[in-house]
Amino acid sequence: MKALYYDKGLAVRELPTPFPPPGEALIRVLAAGICATDREIAAGYMNFTGVPGHEFAGIVEQCSDTRWLGKTVTGEINAGCGRCAWCARGLQRHCPDRTVLGISGRDGAFAQYLCLPAENLVEIPAELSLRQAVFIEPLAAALEILEQVTIPPSGKAAVIGEGKLSQLIAQVFILNGIEFTVFGRSEAKLNLLKRFSIKTSMQPPPPDTFDMVVEASGSPSGWESAVKAVKPRGALILKSTYAEKLKFNPAPLVIKEITLIGSRCGKFPPAVRLLQRKLIDVDILISKVFPFSRILSAFKYSLKPDCLKVIVEFPA
Amino acid sequence: MKALYYDKGLAVRELPTPFPPPGEALIRVLAAGICATDREIAAGYMNFTGVPGHEFAGIVEQCSDTRWLGKTVTGEINAGCGRCAWCARGLQRHCPDRTVLGISGRDGAFAQYLCLPAENLVEIPAELSLRQAVFIEPLAAALEILEQVTIPPSGKAAVIGEGKLSQLIAQVFILNGIEFTVFGRSEAKLNLLKRFSIKTSMQPPPPDTFDMVVEASGSPSGWESAVKAVKPRGALILKSTYAEKLKFNPAPLVIKEITLIGSRCGKFPPAVRLLQRKLIDVDILISKVFPFSRILSAFKYSLKPDCLKVIVEFPA
Repeated sequence: MKALYYDKGLAVRELPTPFPPPGEALIRVLAAGICATDREIAAGYMNFTGVPGHEFAGIVEQCSDTRWLGKTVTGEINAGCGRCAWCARGLQRHCPDRTVLGISGRDGAFAQYLCLPAENLVEIPAELSLRQAVFIEPLAAALEILEQVTIPPSGKAAVIGEGKLSQLIAQVFILNGIEFTVFGRSEAKLNLLKRFSIKTSMQPPPPDTFDMVVEASGSPSGWESAVKAVKPRGALILKSTYAEKLKFNPAPLVIKEITLIGSRCGKFPPAVRLLQRKLIDVDILISKVFPFSRILSAFKYSLKPDCLKVIVEFPA
Repeated sequence: MKALYYDKGLAVRELPTPFPPPGEALIRVLAAGICATDREIAAGYMNFTGVPGHEFAGIVEQCSDTRWLGKTVTGEINAGCGRCAWCARGLQRHCPDRTVLGISGRDGAFAQYLCLPAENLVEIPAELSLRQAVFIEPLAAALEILEQVTIPPSGKAAVIGEGKLSQLIAQVFILNGIEFTVFGRSEAKLNLLKRFSIKTSMQPPPPDTFDMVVEASGSPSGWESAVKAVKPRGALILKSTYAEKLKFNPAPLVIKEITLIGSRCGKFPPAVRLLQRKLIDVDILISKVFPFSRILSAFKYSLKPDCLKVIVEFPA
């Protein structure tokens, strides 16, 4: 099969089609999204060697549980041991022995085929296009905030950053009724939000103003802004992982008695339900679609300043 | 009156006895405790000029509310504007126009007299000695953790640091029933905890082990240990304010989905109740008592590695 392979550099290679181990399904990939994590892998940050890619839609071609055969699916990306307390709570993402699709110990979605445990599979309902299905994973990450904290609908929130994840978080916040502003630097990306009548700003956020601030900019200055902008006793949701170390004084966290919540992946079914009900518009976030044969160009394109989601597709 | 004054250096000075503004009481100080914040002020960190000191016990000599006259009191250290939403919630410590006794905009307790708003006063019950009353403020800071988060009695906790605040937090944790270990470097201080059969360790805490970690060491290495030691999805209570900036990568907070809670001062009445019931032993934490005339020596003494609380007393 054709696959994008990372080993100190990205290259398209011919690899053997994987053979699914017991309990796993073989999935023929039809569409996959490029995410910031993939670009970090391509820059060598995650210490990963193999096939990257973790946002995907595909068709089950082999599975010991025959009910899955021929189904159009996506899949939760963390594969746990299935025996520990984390796995028992459905939090495979914290299993100490986990592998993560295209990120850690498991080849990913930028290939004609991938393997995932059958219990990770999530069927894509007929109402969703394959391209829309690629957003299930990042939308689940946005929804994870709701699993972790109360978002007071009568409160005031700020989202720092205007990238893909921030855009999804903003659309989720609309559904909660909270008053919020998205702070960013790219006029083009902020303009997308204006279509939903979301308040945006290219100024730094005002200090001590917001009950809840989500930092999803991925930049150290975004972190500084977030700590300043949150009210005393407010909540700061940290969605960004930074490539470098930050230099900062945590004293304001203590003095303002801020609650900071690190937030990562989420569960897929709620994301599927919102997309199915057309409550989240992901089409607007697709900047460009490339055939898999041009995946290296797709990666390059995804680095453009005003680019949001880039999708690669395989012929069906 | 005699007072310790900080202006680029500490010195005992003769100052005019203050005249309490409307709504405030004049208190004759009988005992005051030296705290880490006072030493930071003495090192110039807080940009404060004036009389430091905020842990105290004294007698009300003047007050427009005559019920207070002659009462033995301590007082909440944050004096708010009394009109804002924070003050309405009893959270004067977040009032943007607050002064803080001996810390910000208000002369403190290392003097024969101090002024505080009458509503800040808390009567010291007869069962408590003046020296014990000096601990009401730091014990309230320890109890603040219980105001902010659930401490699961069946969980597992770690306290990083073995200083005064950690000792009080450990005694509070005993009352909750949670299994916990205090990690520190001073054998002498850790030995005090052993008298309460508290588990202690001079090793770094094991990784991914504790549902809740309290960082009260005040050292950057304590912060690193705390982030490592907390379990995925666990709570990290940050009690330390660090003099310098930390250099750290917040990625583990996101990957482990940690909830970090900045925690500061607390309310006094619960601290008074626990001391009154003899559920917290603060006598054990007093390293030495000095007369006020030797307050500069008291400051020096408080810097000794195995020193806990140093108290200065005025003749009654």
